[in-house]
Amino acid sequence: MNHSFHPPHRTLMGPGPSDVSPRVLGALGRPTIGHLDPQFITLMDEIKALLQYVFKTENELTIPLSAPGSAGMEAAFVNLLSPGDTVIVCQNGVFGGRMKENVERCGATAVMVQDRWGDPVDPEKVTAAFAAHPEASVLAFVHSETSTGVRSDAETLCAIAKNHGALTVVDTVTTLAGIDLQVDNWGADAVYSGTQKCLSCVPGLSPMTFSPAAVDRIQQRPERVQSWFLDMQLVMGYWGGDSKRAYHHTAPVNALYALHEALLIVREEGLEASFERHRNNHLQLVAGLERMGLEMAVAPEWRLPQLNAVCIPEGVDDAEVRGRLLREFDLEIGAGLGELAGKQWRIGLMGHASNPVNVQRCLTALGTVLGR
Amino acid sequence: MNHSFHPPHRTLMGPGPSDVSPRVLGALGRPTIGHLDPQFITLMDEIKALLQYVFKTENELTIPLSAPGSAGMEAAFVNLLSPGDTVIVCQNGVFGGRMKENVERCGATAVMVQDRWGDPVDPEKVTAAFAAHPEASVLAFVHSETSTGVRSDAETLCAIAKNHGALTVVDTVTTLAGIDLQVDNWGADAVYSGTQKCLSCVPGLSPMTFSPAAVDRIQQRPERVQSWFLDMQLVMGYWGGDSKRAYHHTAPVNALYALHEALLIVREEGLEASFERHRNNHLQLVAGLERMGLEMAVAPEWRLPQLNAVCIPEGVDDAEVRGRLLREFDLEIGAGLGELAGKQWRIGLMGHASNPVNVQRCLTALGTVLGR
Repeated sequence: MNHSFHPPHRTLMGPGPSDVSPRVLGALGRPTIGHLDPQFITLMDEIKALLQYVFKTENELTIPLSAPGSAGMEAAFVNLLSPGDTVIVCQNGVFGGRMKENVERCGATAVMVQDRWGDPVDPEKVTAAFAAHPEASVLAFVHSETSTGVRSDAETLCAIAKNHGALTVVDTVTTLAGIDLQVDNWGADAVYSGTQKCLSCVPGLSPMTFSPAAVDRIQQRPERVQSWFLDMQLVMGYWGGDSKRAYHHTAPVNALYALHEALLIVREEGLEASFERHRNNHLQLVAGLERMGLEMAVAPEWRLPQLNAVCIPEGVDDAEVRGRLLREFDLEIGAGLGELAGKQWRIGLMGHASNPVNVQRCLTALGTVLGR
Repeated sequence: MNHSFHPPHRTLMGPGPSDVSPRVLGALGRPTIGHLDPQFITLMDEIKALLQYVFKTENELTIPLSAPGSAGMEAAFVNLLSPGDTVIVCQNGVFGGRMKENVERCGATAVMVQDRWGDPVDPEKVTAAFAAHPEASVLAFVHSETSTGVRSDAETLCAIAKNHGALTVVDTVTTLAGIDLQVDNWGADAVYSGTQKCLSCVPGLSPMTFSPAAVDRIQQRPERVQSWFLDMQLVMGYWGGDSKRAYHHTAPVNALYALHEALLIVREEGLEASFERHRNNHLQLVAGLERMGLEMAVAPEWRLPQLNAVCIPEGVDDAEVRGRLLREFDLEIGAGLGELAGKQWRIGLMGHASNPVNVQRCLTALGTVLGR
């Protein structure tokens, strides 16, 4: 306990955090300035504009929340919901279940739409849920299920909600900068993400964006938001458009340096090029895994290129394999989560870490450990 | 917007963030590892033990919350309170008012004990409030009021609460490692702090500790905590004592590297030596300010050595002075907050930044700008 901590140099190919680029780590360690410093205010404006670029939105309320993606999820619900509201929650993995928890803690009712873990959300079930619950004011779903490696059809789901006059809460924690996300074109209303996935930034922040319709609902809600820290009416006072920023809480200054740099890197490459790179490396990884006789857990159309769910072969000891990868190769891959624990691995190729060297590193290490 | 952000090199002598030591910035920028990596789990255990040292506690539930001090405040209230509870809230500055907001958003009633901004909390008023509200289950107060630079007598206030069978919520955001805090000896129950004050770490985390009595109340509460992210029963599963850590949220890995290093620095110096250093530099600063004809806003006995409230002299333009200090001297001092805006400055001498060089730098710069 008397010594500084010098972390091992891992290759992070789990469900996140992903490897952080040296440029981002460099930015992170720059000298701290005040959270009301004029130069910091300028940085905040740049971060907002860069987030609008990656979310493909012109939403004014587009900010990095000063807490991880789980708090982003909670911020979406506590701001949009009032006690007694009904929310249709789609669950096809761990994070839909967490949405239910959040909805209920707001005093609202969660109507669950269940799909098999490993399948996308079924839009027909969602339509049926709206027919049975026309009072539902929000549809909540996970675009990229981090627990299963499955993409759902966010565009179609947003359209269904709009047809029923409901707002959408969309989890894009693993989506952002990895696969296409069109917040404005699809009409998503309260969208949150994380920094530690395809942005390849350090964990701890949750980029968020709220549509004008979501902001309207927040401004017209009859009672105060149950969370002071996550109350967007207060957060807007600090991140808002005018030059006079009201102190709300002390922003995590250095983490925001890092996010700014990570977003610059994404913009330098370009979103479409980033998607293409994620896709290509994913295809190389899948080809290699299949050559080894391993089976992917998700149907090709719905696979996330940034997070590859692989079935653990019969008779293979999950923990031992992951332990050896970590000890012998400094390589982290993800365990299965929830009901998939012991049944699947999750191999991330996210952001900076989605590159051919990592694909080969993973295939070589896994092949050695499995003897394939 | 096309360029990396290179912050100016400020001297931070406001109410926080304070200057971060290069050792801490170095730790912050080390390569990210996974939040479930065995080496990270070891680091978490070391951080817990170091936090127990600075809080002077053996509380098992002693953790850094993955969000700023404002979220720490909220975590204390949402975990301890149920709807209908009564809380005695002491207000002698901005943060007592924020406590009231939090209490009410939990569906509880806040009985306010008001003192002049600039005075400490009056224990006799607290005793009277308990007499009038014997049903009160919690006493909440701010040990070091960041908005006024005032210390209150936490030991006495905790004793009063104990006499009435109430738990205490104690804000020590500006206290920790700057002035004495004895969580166990004083019997404080739910105590939160921040990293960006006298720990001289980057902003974004809230060190917290809960007494066994507080943990009992949390475990026996009749309904779920209204916040999923701040629910200590869930957080305990990740930060708990056993070797099997349950995933709750992705920990802010790099920020925790920084906190570990900052805590090591405090322990190397020793808490009592740190208090002594804060006191000595404070006395030097006050002597210099008084030589300049400036007046301190707080009575000597209740002054925080780490945060010095100074009356702005008649006819002096607050914003212009602070602007010139920033532009001409790269020196940040704090404005007045709330009803003290325009009336006082707050000069921080916190942690790493509490040193004779900064005392001289501030006196020289202020003397030049004021022409004194």
